[in-house]
Amino acid sequence: MEKLEQIYEGKAKKVFATSDPELLIVEYKDDATAFNGKKRGSIAGKGRINNRMSNALMRRLASSGVPTHLVRELSERETLVKKVKIVPLEVIVRNISAGSFCKRYGFPEGVRFEKPTVEYSYKNDELNDPLIVPSHVLAMKLASPEELRTIEDYALRVDEVLSAFWLDCGVTLVDFKLEFGRLPDGTIILADEISPDTCRLWDVKTGEKLDKDRFRLDLGGVEDAYREIMARLEAAENA
Amino acid sequence: MEKLEQIYEGKAKKVFATSDPELLIVEYKDDATAFNGKKRGSIAGKGRINNRMSNALMRRLASSGVPTHLVRELSERETLVKKVKIVPLEVIVRNISAGSFCKRYGFPEGVRFEKPTVEYSYKNDELNDPLIVPSHVLAMKLASPEELRTIEDYALRVDEVLSAFWLDCGVTLVDFKLEFGRLPDGTIILADEISPDTCRLWDVKTGEKLDKDRFRLDLGGVEDAYREIMARLEAAENA
Repeated sequence: MEKLEQIYEGKAKKVFATSDPELLIVEYKDDATAFNGKKRGSIAGKGRINNRMSNALMRRLASSGVPTHLVRELSERETLVKKVKIVPLEVIVRNISAGSFCKRYGFPEGVRFEKPTVEYSYKNDELNDPLIVPSHVLAMKLASPEELRTIEDYALRVDEVLSAFWLDCGVTLVDFKLEFGRLPDGTIILADEISPDTCRLWDVKTGEKLDKDRFRLDLGGVEDAYREIMARLEAAENA
Repeated sequence: MEKLEQIYEGKAKKVFATSDPELLIVEYKDDATAFNGKKRGSIAGKGRINNRMSNALMRRLASSGVPTHLVRELSERETLVKKVKIVPLEVIVRNISAGSFCKRYGFPEGVRFEKPTVEYSYKNDELNDPLIVPSHVLAMKLASPEELRTIEDYALRVDEVLSAFWLDCGVTLVDFKLEFGRLPDGTIILADEISPDTCRLWDVKTGEKLDKDRFRLDLGGVEDAYREIMARLEAAENA
């Protein structure tokens, strides 16, 4: 598959056209940003880890009935994916209170919810990705009622599958962010990435944060945390 | 009914105990605030208008199957109401885009939605009454699933009844905020007020704003707008 011109550069990835108009190549960078780009830095080795981890998790999800954009891993940092039109929503699933939820509602961190919560943010950097409720999504015609139902079903399925998988790795899946896209025929599939950049992952025993919060909150040991979580995933994959 | 000690003073109302532990007296003030108290002022005659308007609208809603806290009007500014524990949610129904919706999502004002939207804010001045989705309401145990269903049903019923009534007055009901409370036996009833402080009301023909936005946005003619909307309500009531 020939890698053609770069068509997009995001905070953590570059995207390239290919000779097939329906396929793209994603290249994962080591760059890290937080708080909507206000904090910037680099996490050595992150690109490689996120590429491999996201692909491993998406393969697992595909075999559990959640269609994804993954076609195949091309190299340490590059993956061939299906081209989609991104639905302009961040889909956030929470099992345990943390992060923006605690800040927004003055709620303590670490409380496990009886049922996972699903929330949407309107993807818009200028507006700071504001929280949006389903009736607003429909009012603004960002997605159809059927698409929203599909997205919520998939998001909760991802939570089930990945919560169980990470638990096998001795890791608690606290919360995560997903993005979905539309194929040319309108089919909704999971896109973007699933990695320590987009999930909160805590050691089951110690509660230690093994995700981007180490960078966001200046906790130190950022690279070690990414390596540790990848090692656990690989051990579980090879078990 | 004897008016006893003041037990609460809000932005636009005072609340007094009575000799009956299950009843309160609400006294409407002329004070006006906006933007979570950052803007302050006074609108002459507002207290009288809001008291009478809220009571007239709540009588109408009660006869349409939405139970309310209204017992009876005691004077120009005072009303006897049932004592409730307020559910800490602002329930906002929108028919047309305006206000915080437009600001939050960069969306133009004045677009009529295909279906009304319902959203919740967590009532908490320190946190700036943040938007909250139903799954968070449940996770934080602010209301039960059954209570949320009842509240949403009532909110949409209020929209139906009041949209039709205001249209008869030559007024478009753009959006409004409701609050609900629990009686000692757990029954959910409509509380707080329904007035130009809590609704956006636009003249059907000219689009002129006949509500608190005249104060919020320094449009002038604030008192005239409150008097005009009250005159239209009274004309319809007496028709």
